[in-house]
Amino acid sequence: MTPLPPHLEEAYRAMLARFVAIPSVGAEGRGQSEMAHALVLELEALGLDTHAHETEGAPVIFAERRVHGAPSVLFYNHYDVQPADPLDLWESDPFTLTERDGSLYGRGASDDKGQLVSRIIALRWLRERHGDLPFGVVFVVEGEEEIGSPNMVRYVEERREQLAADVGIWEFGGVDAHDRPLLTCGLKGIATVDLSLRTAAMDLHSANGPVVQNAAWRLASAVAGLRDEEGRVLIEGFYDRVRPPTDAERGYVEATPRDDDVFAEHVGVERFLGGATGAEYQRRLQLEPTLNVNGFHSGYGGPGMKTVLPATALAKLDFRLVPDQQPLEIVALLHEHLEREGFSDVVVNLAEEPERPARVDPDDPWLRHAADALEEAYGTPAVVIVSSGGSGPLHPFVEVLELPIAMIGVSYPGSRVHSPNEHVRLVDVHRGTYATVRLLERWAGLAPPD
Amino acid sequence: MTPLPPHLEEAYRAMLARFVAIPSVGAEGRGQSEMAHALVLELEALGLDTHAHETEGAPVIFAERRVHGAPSVLFYNHYDVQPADPLDLWESDPFTLTERDGSLYGRGASDDKGQLVSRIIALRWLRERHGDLPFGVVFVVEGEEEIGSPNMVRYVEERREQLAADVGIWEFGGVDAHDRPLLTCGLKGIATVDLSLRTAAMDLHSANGPVVQNAAWRLASAVAGLRDEEGRVLIEGFYDRVRPPTDAERGYVEATPRDDDVFAEHVGVERFLGGATGAEYQRRLQLEPTLNVNGFHSGYGGPGMKTVLPATALAKLDFRLVPDQQPLEIVALLHEHLEREGFSDVVVNLAEEPERPARVDPDDPWLRHAADALEEAYGTPAVVIVSSGGSGPLHPFVEVLELPIAMIGVSYPGSRVHSPNEHVRLVDVHRGTYATVRLLERWAGLAPPD
Repeated sequence: MTPLPPHLEEAYRAMLARFVAIPSVGAEGRGQSEMAHALVLELEALGLDTHAHETEGAPVIFAERRVHGAPSVLFYNHYDVQPADPLDLWESDPFTLTERDGSLYGRGASDDKGQLVSRIIALRWLRERHGDLPFGVVFVVEGEEEIGSPNMVRYVEERREQLAADVGIWEFGGVDAHDRPLLTCGLKGIATVDLSLRTAAMDLHSANGPVVQNAAWRLASAVAGLRDEEGRVLIEGFYDRVRPPTDAERGYVEATPRDDDVFAEHVGVERFLGGATGAEYQRRLQLEPTLNVNGFHSGYGGPGMKTVLPATALAKLDFRLVPDQQPLEIVALLHEHLEREGFSDVVVNLAEEPERPARVDPDDPWLRHAADALEEAYGTPAVVIVSSGGSGPLHPFVEVLELPIAMIGVSYPGSRVHSPNEHVRLVDVHRGTYATVRLLERWAGLAPPD
Repeated sequence: MTPLPPHLEEAYRAMLARFVAIPSVGAEGRGQSEMAHALVLELEALGLDTHAHETEGAPVIFAERRVHGAPSVLFYNHYDVQPADPLDLWESDPFTLTERDGSLYGRGASDDKGQLVSRIIALRWLRERHGDLPFGVVFVVEGEEEIGSPNMVRYVEERREQLAADVGIWEFGGVDAHDRPLLTCGLKGIATVDLSLRTAAMDLHSANGPVVQNAAWRLASAVAGLRDEEGRVLIEGFYDRVRPPTDAERGYVEATPRDDDVFAEHVGVERFLGGATGAEYQRRLQLEPTLNVNGFHSGYGGPGMKTVLPATALAKLDFRLVPDQQPLEIVALLHEHLEREGFSDVVVNLAEEPERPARVDPDDPWLRHAADALEEAYGTPAVVIVSSGGSGPLHPFVEVLELPIAMIGVSYPGSRVHSPNEHVRLVDVHRGTYATVRLLERWAGLAPPD
């Protein structure tokens, strides 16, 4: 590993401290414009032509510098962060970057300010290594990723020409639990829906149980029938559009190093769904679509008893989808399933803008460069992940802009992303930023300076 | 109807005002001893030998005056009340008795202070009518009815001799929606249980859905299998001990005046379970045991989405039982059912002390007197209800003390018992108290004074 030069490590720490100090919590609608402004200053300092593009939500910060005849690299990142609560579980103030034991703590220290700063510092480093940036750079930094990127698809579609590039680097990435660098090549799609039900005008005394339908039981019954004990979704047509994995994808999934035993111990689970271990565990995580119940609430939940017959019930679901499933079609299938099963009184509402699944080809030559750069920076081969189990607005970048996208970065499984005590390890900042530098050099056809 | 004499109406109002002013909310553990003391003074003023009997919870106020050679009547009542919240829905202070439009408003104005005061005033009236009380009187007034009477069974069993009586008057009663007097002859039993489940050591990101079991889904699945769409309980053995109704019980159920249409409109229900109307609706309410889901809670329930995979789930159930079902046996059957269905990870806990079902014979001569007294007081025949859909500590009084029990009183369906703006109508106080007077005269073999 080639470490960041000390002055760039210092610059990383200082820029991240400025960013973390701005509580740009999208869900709370605060700090967005201040953060956007701070980001514009940093991107302009890189010599990029920088603009705040208005959307129906928070502005997208767009920056570019094109180099005639050279490839352009698009960086997708976001400047919003998750809420910091529960505050009492933080060991230091979430909005004051704090260094402890070789790590930098704060909300956004990893997701996504720490990643974004790593890319900016990588570009500075490249300029120092080569006197200039001899390739095109495009930044797309949105402010609504943590609330589901509701305006990203339209933004990319409307600015397709302006965003044109040859290859992209995604907002996150890092190492696995054994410090092996990950090269993730896809994200699942997501559709989030609320199921709600009313069986009477008001909650009633449970003495009416023999005659009035119980909303909690009825919605439990509807939800129970949506999948089976091993997680298989029972909605007719749900799997129809699932694209069978290619031999290459199957090969990468089978080659993913085993870590289900470590995870099982960490989360206290004795048996995974389907009894999955090893390659089957990885296949499920990377390639299987699912239906999750995020929450179910009806009636009384306090201590002791309350003999109420609840008139309303609410279940919150998310579907994680794989290519070529279509989120809105899946929601329509859910509708039809409920009708068919006699649950036409269950109201289905989209909770958030859905996201479509997307993958890039791990064997694309641009991605092979990424694997090589990672091996060089980390001294160990990259682990190719065909698809993350998570979601994000990857689809328009892959399908509209037709970009091969590399997901690499400075995170690790213990970064506590979205949780109290989020942090980035300095060791990951050094090697992750160096990997980015080497990848950009490879893509631009530059030899590393002596 | 013979109204209460004005000075007794005034005495009713004044005593109820004193009682309502004491917030004896059992669930909040406040006002109990002050209320017990106020009650002791009133019962002593009636000339009864009055004691506060300690229990493991709130004391039972016991009062008696025996008359050699005459029958003894036991009054079961309670001096605790439900919590007053939500406070903002009260039109007057819940702990200040307030008269509006011919009704007296306040927490406990009906349940059970209003009923209790009616019985005390009835005894005063009887003394005025006959110069003395020529029959035995026993009061058992507990302070924990609203939290499930956890100490009543043991209390009755331990003081079986001391409580001996010939007949009893229960803590509640009144008229139906058409102002017909009700003579209720039974209560259902109740067992309340919490079902809880843990599938992982912590809530996880829902990207883990393909491999980690979802606690919300799994408990929904367990709960869904406990009953069917029309309310039939699917737990093996659940109905085994249900005693078939006698011809007389069947006859009373069929003769119950139809009021399901009024209730359907009031609660906004288009179809009752099993499509029940008329006599079948009454049969279900009075004779069918049920399983109710009082609440179901797991995971996220706020606005928008949160892509969490919940590791825990909680469901709160109540079983309403009929003779000769045994609450603890039913809980054991629930256990066995869950084991058999593969839900051995669902933890079953009793939420509160269960109560056994009990009924008295509507054709018992003591009860026939009650029907006659009601018809005399209300000018219309009493409606015999074989069993209320609700529960209470009736079983030890019927089965241990072997008392025929009449459930009569001063309530009506709009009394808003357990809700904001609880009240008693003065018209019900007049005729309900008079019915009590006439019933006691009939039981004691006294002719009404000229």
